[in-house]
This record gives sequence, C-alpha cells and structure tokens, in this order.
Amino acid sequence: MIVDQDRASPSVKDVRDAAEQIRAVAVRTPVITSPVLDAATGARVLIKAENLQRTGSFKFRGAYNRLSRLSDDDRARGVVACSSGNHAQGVAEAARLLRTPATIVMPTDAPAGKVRGVRERGATVVTYDRLSEDRFAVMADIAKSTGAVETPPYDHPHIIAGQGTAGLEFAAQSDAAGARLDALFCNVGGGGLMAGLALAFEAESPRTKLYAVEPAGFDDTRRSLLSGVRKRNAAAGGSICDALLPEAPGEMTFGINKPRLAGGVVVTDAEALAAMNFAFRRLKLVLEPGGAASLAAVLFGKIDVRGKTIGVVVTGGNVDADMFERAIGV
Amino acid sequence: MIVDQDRASPSVKDVRDAAEQIRAVAVRTPVITSPVLDAATGARVLIKAENLQRTGSFKFRGAYNRLSRLSDDDRARGVVACSSGNHAQGVAEAARLLRTPATIVMPTDAPAGKVRGVRERGATVVTYDRLSEDRFAVMADIAKSTGAVETPPYDHPHIIAGQGTAGLEFAAQSDAAGARLDALFCNVGGGGLMAGLALAFEAESPRTKLYAVEPAGFDDTRRSLLSGVRKRNAAAGGSICDALLPEAPGEMTFGINKPRLAGGVVVTDAEALAAMNFAFRRLKLVLEPGGAASLAAVLFGKIDVRGKTIGVVVTGGNVDADMFERAIGV
Repeated sequence: MIVDQDRASPSVKDVRDAAEQIRAVAVRTPVITSPVLDAATGARVLIKAENLQRTGSFKFRGAYNRLSRLSDDDRARGVVACSSGNHAQGVAEAARLLRTPATIVMPTDAPAGKVRGVRERGATVVTYDRLSEDRFAVMADIAKSTGAVETPPYDHPHIIAGQGTAGLEFAAQSDAAGARLDALFCNVGGGGLMAGLALAFEAESPRTKLYAVEPAGFDDTRRSLLSGVRKRNAAAGGSICDALLPEAPGEMTFGINKPRLAGGVVVTDAEALAAMNFAFRRLKLVLEPGGAASLAAVLFGKIDVRGKTIGVVVTGGNVDADMFERAIGV
Repeated sequence: MIVDQDRASPSVKDVRDAAEQIRAVAVRTPVITSPVLDAATGARVLIKAENLQRTGSFKFRGAYNRLSRLSDDDRARGVVACSSGNHAQGVAEAARLLRTPATIVMPTDAPAGKVRGVRERGATVVTYDRLSEDRFAVMADIAKSTGAVETPPYDHPHIIAGQGTAGLEFAAQSDAAGARLDALFCNVGGGGLMAGLALAFEAESPRTKLYAVEPAGFDDTRRSLLSGVRKRNAAAGGSICDALLPEAPGEMTFGINKPRLAGGVVVTDAEALAAMNFAFRRLKLVLEPGGAASLAAVLFGKIDVRGKTIGVVVTGGNVDADMFERAIGV
C-alpha cells in the first residue's frame, strides 16, 4: 500500500519536525500574564500572544512549513492560497522568503490592511465574492491553469503541523512558568491551529482540556463536536471576526479535533470588541476581532474558570484602524 | 560617619535585591522581536516590552520596591507621590497590594485613563497646575501635613533600583537569545529607569552603549550630559509625551547616568506618533507617546544602527483612546 505522505493526517512528530523547520524564521512568541486579567477572571491566565508572530498572526507557521517543503520544481511554479487575510499574509511572507511566486484568493470584504499586507510582500491578489463564489473552486482553477501549488488554509498536514508549533512552545513556556494548564481556549476557523495544538497538548499536557472558540453564527466546530459529524455554517459572512468564518470544519482538522476537544463556546461580535478594548486598555496588545474571541470567552465566563490555570491563544492582530477605533471608543 | 542608606546612591547590588523584592508581584516582561522591524532598521532589534508590565508601565517596579521596604509605622501613615500618571499608577497599585493609603499629586492635564487607573486602585488624587505650581512642593506639603511618606518619581535609591530590575531581565533575556546588545535606547524623563538600567548593564553587559531618548523641548538629560551639569527644561508642558516632561534630571539619577551614558537623542511628537502607528500596525503593541519615543529614535535613525544589535525599552502603554486614534489614523 502506498500512503501519500502529503495527505496523511499529521502526528505530533510532524509538529516537532515543523518546529525545527520554522525555527530560524518564525518568532517564538511570548507568553503574557496580567494581574488585572487574573483578577477579572478569578483564574491564573497565560496568554500565548500569536498576534506578535511574524505577519501578525500564527498563520506564518503553517505557511512556511508547507512552502519550505516544496520541491524546487514546485516552488518555481509558485503557490496559490485562499484566505481572508492572515493565511494570505503568512503565505505571502513565506513565499517572499523562499522566492516563490504567490497568488492569493481573498474575499472582496477582506480588511484593507490585510490586502495591503499581502501586496506589500509581493504576492498577487485575486478577489472573490464571499456570498456567491466558492473560494476553494477559485483556488483550484488557478492551480489548474497556472500549475501553482495549492496551499489550503487549514486542511493540510504541513499546515496543521506548522500551526501546532505554537502548542509545543506554549506547553514548554507554561512548564517553565510552573503552570499546569487546566484548560486551553483557542479561536477556531477551519480548525488548523486547534488541531495542531491538540496534537501538541496530547503529547505534552494531556490533562489540559481544549475548547474551541467561535463567533456566533459560525459555530460549525462546536455543533460538529456535539453531533459527531461535520456541520456547515448557514451564513457566509456577517461577523466582524473575519478570520473565523469558514464554510465548515476541515475534514482532516476535524478528524484530529473530534476525539481531542472538550467542546466549543461561542462569543458575540460585541464580546469580541469588548475583549479588544480590554486588551487595549489593560494588556496593551493589539488584537483583531477574531484574534480576541478566545480572550472574550474567558472574560465573559463562557466556561467557569475560577480558581483554574488557563491558557488563552490570541491568534491575530491584523485589524484596520477604523475597526480598532470602534473597539476602543467608549 | 553615619550614612543614610535611604539616601545613598544605589549600586547594582541594590538592583539585584530589588529583583528579589518584586519577583512575586511584577511581570517579567517579554522581549519581543520582529522581522519587519529588523528590516525597517537594518539592525537586529530586541524590544523590552515594559508596556506589558503591571499597571502598563515599568513604574510599578520602583514603586513596589520602595513601598514594600517601608516600616509598618510608615506604611500605616500612607504614602504621597507626584506623577503625570505612570508612577502614579505604580504607586497606587503597590499601595493597594500593601494595604497602604496613597495620595497622588497629578497635573490637571494628565491623560484621563491614567487618572482613572489611579482612582480605580483606591488612591486619592490631588491635582496641580503644571505651568504655575511646583509638584514637589505640593507633595512635600501633603507629606508634612499628613505624615505621609514621600515616594518621589525617580530620585530615590529604592525607585532607581526597582526600575533597574528591567535591565537585569533584559540583559539575561538578550543573553538567552544569543544577542550581544551594541546599544540600548531608553526613554528618559527624570532618569530613574535609565539610571537603573545603567547600573544593571554596567554589571551585565558593560560594552553596551546607552542612549537616552527625550522629546523635543525636554532634552534636559541630553544637554546635561553634554555640559556635565544638570540643565533645566525651558517649558513645563506642550509635548504629547506626557510621561517624559520633568523639570530637570534628578540629582541622584544624573549622578549615575553622567558617567555611564553614551549620549542622548531627541524625537519629535510626530515621530513618537509614527512609532505608535508602527507598533500598532507591525508589532501589535499598544504604546503611549512617551513609551514609543525609544522606538521612534531607532525607526528614524537618530543613531546609525545598521548592522548592529540594538535593545529598545518601550516604557509604557497608558494612552487614551483619542490620542491612540490620532496615532493610528492615516
């Protein structure tokens, strides 16, 4: 039997390999603590600040792990990806470092700063309409017509393994701080980061309960976990959490997440904005709406965390000034 | 001869003692790196993110070191401090933790969020007019009439030693990252943090050149270093860098800084705002104007840092929403 290694679900070994692969170019993001956050939640909270990652989100990890493993031939043909903006910038940055042409399929309503961040890095942007077009079909068409290699946003072993490197770091940083995480909250779109974290924590901190955090109306992973099969979202847009609006959980990511997650919680746009405001005033961190959902889940007590030691992955900070002003205005 | 230990200039031993004293309550702030900042400056830049310190600035370090060393009798009488807002919040927080009454003398034009941060922590705020009143005289009057213990913003050995703990951390964190800092840029108001850093770096990294960064019109330390004697600022207000507007360098702080600093550089308000914008867009950090001056100095090439390894202490992130919007608006 021949197994296509490129398509086999990753293991923690792949995550460890990815950590080596990206070490020289990715930022080992800090873990941040805040007495005022501890007081506000009644918990000891450790924040893994992936908004401080290269390109402003964790997405660079998976993108670089994927692109750097392509053959010279593949790299010469270039890559194509679809993303609302964080994976887009991750791929564009990885492609720039590896001198690979990149085309990114982005929705017409992507934040301006994210589109700028892709173009600045030398990638070509192709737009699609979130409501009427299938981004994966657009990506596949481009791949077919140009020969570019597809770099999906989450459902690929190299992407998942790359994102999981944040989990290996977080587990080690928690250990170093003498903290045993009772629970971990992470924002979930397609579930690539969550799946990578799940692999890392299963190996490094198996007693930590993992919770997916999703925006209201886009709780496909929460509902899928409850039913045991992948559920789609009814809407295609309408939340300010632009990074967390997938069609449905990935097949590979959900296969990893289903047996490993404790559940999912939902936050509203207003709660995400309030978490951004808290991060501005109290933590001095810039978060985008979808990057702050995990913090919102803890601030708004979606799960009782009082007396517990809690990990929160804030996943991105690529937010336009007008949206940020909306969050910090009083 | 009897030496008043409370008034003797501190040594690095005092800084090390302070590190022990504050360990359980202060945040060991992370050192942040950013490939985009390295590309923008042509240097390898390590940022010591003191905006992530408890109360949003480094000031908590010195305040807690001072207040926690008071006798029970002194603590019962309470403390009085003067500050535009960061030392104020540091003292208020330390006083809250130590159950000590605190009165803070703040200028009438202090940022609203800083005043709120002091009151939220249970301290009493007394205002003075920056242009017509001497804050030190107001503080002394309150001390005399109430018996409260003065907690000056910089010119005290326990304050200087406390701030210096950031330097011990930064030196150790740089070592751990395999970085030998060629130069270190730090914002300077009265010079307490700079003096503490100078003691720490003299011991831990004596080849690092130290530069004071000050706002235009308030370059008292730069001019004092050039002339060898303490110079006053002509103006009492008028820069948005509210944390960096002292009357003159402290006597004790300048005594420490004079033989240890390589020089001083000046940034404009516009440059500080641009650095805040850069920190928002690229670093995902919230900085206040005076907290971003050091970053501005590096971004605007006040000293040639190309090819060098550079430390930058960003000192605070307590900024009102309207000022932040001014910085991030395009």
